[in-house]
Amino acid sequence: MLINKLCIIGVGLIGGSLARALKAAGECAHVVGCGRNIEHLKTAQKLGVIDSYHTDMSCAAKDADVIVLATPLGVMADAFQRIYPVLIENTLITDVGSTKASVAAQARAHLGEHLPRFVPGHPIAGSEQNGVTASFAELFQNRRVILTPLPETDDQAHQLIQKMWNITGAEVVEMEVMHHDEVLAATSHLPHVLAYTLVDTLAQMEDRREIFRFAAGGFRDFTRIASSHPRMWHDICLANQDALVQVLDIFARDLQQVSDMIRHADSQSLEDLFTRAKQKRDEFSG
Amino acid sequence: MLINKLCIIGVGLIGGSLARALKAAGECAHVVGCGRNIEHLKTAQKLGVIDSYHTDMSCAAKDADVIVLATPLGVMADAFQRIYPVLIENTLITDVGSTKASVAAQARAHLGEHLPRFVPGHPIAGSEQNGVTASFAELFQNRRVILTPLPETDDQAHQLIQKMWNITGAEVVEMEVMHHDEVLAATSHLPHVLAYTLVDTLAQMEDRREIFRFAAGGFRDFTRIASSHPRMWHDICLANQDALVQVLDIFARDLQQVSDMIRHADSQSLEDLFTRAKQKRDEFSG
Repeated sequence: MLINKLCIIGVGLIGGSLARALKAAGECAHVVGCGRNIEHLKTAQKLGVIDSYHTDMSCAAKDADVIVLATPLGVMADAFQRIYPVLIENTLITDVGSTKASVAAQARAHLGEHLPRFVPGHPIAGSEQNGVTASFAELFQNRRVILTPLPETDDQAHQLIQKMWNITGAEVVEMEVMHHDEVLAATSHLPHVLAYTLVDTLAQMEDRREIFRFAAGGFRDFTRIASSHPRMWHDICLANQDALVQVLDIFARDLQQVSDMIRHADSQSLEDLFTRAKQKRDEFSG
Repeated sequence: MLINKLCIIGVGLIGGSLARALKAAGECAHVVGCGRNIEHLKTAQKLGVIDSYHTDMSCAAKDADVIVLATPLGVMADAFQRIYPVLIENTLITDVGSTKASVAAQARAHLGEHLPRFVPGHPIAGSEQNGVTASFAELFQNRRVILTPLPETDDQAHQLIQKMWNITGAEVVEMEVMHHDEVLAATSHLPHVLAYTLVDTLAQMEDRREIFRFAAGGFRDFTRIASSHPRMWHDICLANQDALVQVLDIFARDLQQVSDMIRHADSQSLEDLFTRAKQKRDEFSG
């Protein structure tokens, strides 16, 4: 058995699915859950996702072999501070935060001598669904989990967290912290910002023009991610401020160029761009 | 039976599905298809979507009771000119183009005394799929079809085209030409431009950063429409230039505001916007 006592701080879609996967594989003896909402914790226990729970992070983290921080990014600094006093030498810590530079900085600020046993991670398996009721053991199968070990990270710690994710069926890849944040800003954070902004732009046009009544399937797919958790995405955008602002600037510049192509009826450039993009997108699906 | 001889110019997803729906309902005796590609027309005939075909528009349109122009917008002006010589007094003409001001202007320029029997239309039932092999009789069920009759449009012509679409299971609504183009620019044309642009922006970043490898489900949904037909969307963007440029400007301004919120860590405004947008999007799904 890989883990005797696993502590999941934040028992939602990701934390809950991880607990389920490890239990299903028989690789975890006891899961203690932690969260602010006791009703959610009771639900998680009833569903068999966790075996026990605490609303206090330091109580939950005590004697754990592995602590998984699956809290919103805005709570991460506080979480490091709260678990720090109860950490013992062999406790491993990992997280599932969508940005890594901010989390690494907070770990560095608050984990002291335990920093080498912190392995920053990010499973690429979000959804506009959330909460423990949406969790399932197979969520990570054939998904990628990115680990961004720090220069200080202990090899054994790194290997155990890698094993943990392999057990869930995920493909584990390693990446530099900054590289991770740039890539995710482009493929995940930027699309979310665009979807939220589009829906809000249209909502403001709507009063006089019944905009949404005539929206079709393309719009539905395009804006699905605007149903994601607002607070969580607020946290992500601010935690990944630099990389996100950079890619937003690039996108805004490119969009201005496309806008100019349309404005000036630059037929060839417009068709070339759409053709290139379609080709690229078709490769991605395949 | 509503239509004796139906002529479909452009036997693709939309034209093919319309023919299938009318035949399935027993409301159409004979469908003649027209297109440039004789292999596609043969396939359409084998599939039972059309009964006969011509590659020449005026041959296909001859003696038709209803002519449906389901060609790309870039071919519409040419189509009006080619069918004009064979129009007889009772022939009705409609189209399925995604923009209406451009089509109305072309009809006005080329249909002469037949203009009152042209009923501009737009079924909101696209897909990133296309071609007659993707067509099916139920495509329009519970979808909206927008008709934008001109001041000159004959009442009887309008009513018959309305009936035709009702038979397919669509809800037919009426709209002013300009209103249609504004609404569709916002809910359909703008999202397509954003999706194409995003994929192209990311493709240009990709060489050094393996961007797409780490894209997840949100990205997949968001960019699905970037797999749409490039030439068709090129035509739409240029045909709806004015309304699209206008909404692109509004979106670019709003995106700059969101970008500034992130840059300046304006936490409250950002969370408010995401919360508003999520609420609006959830209403739309429900």
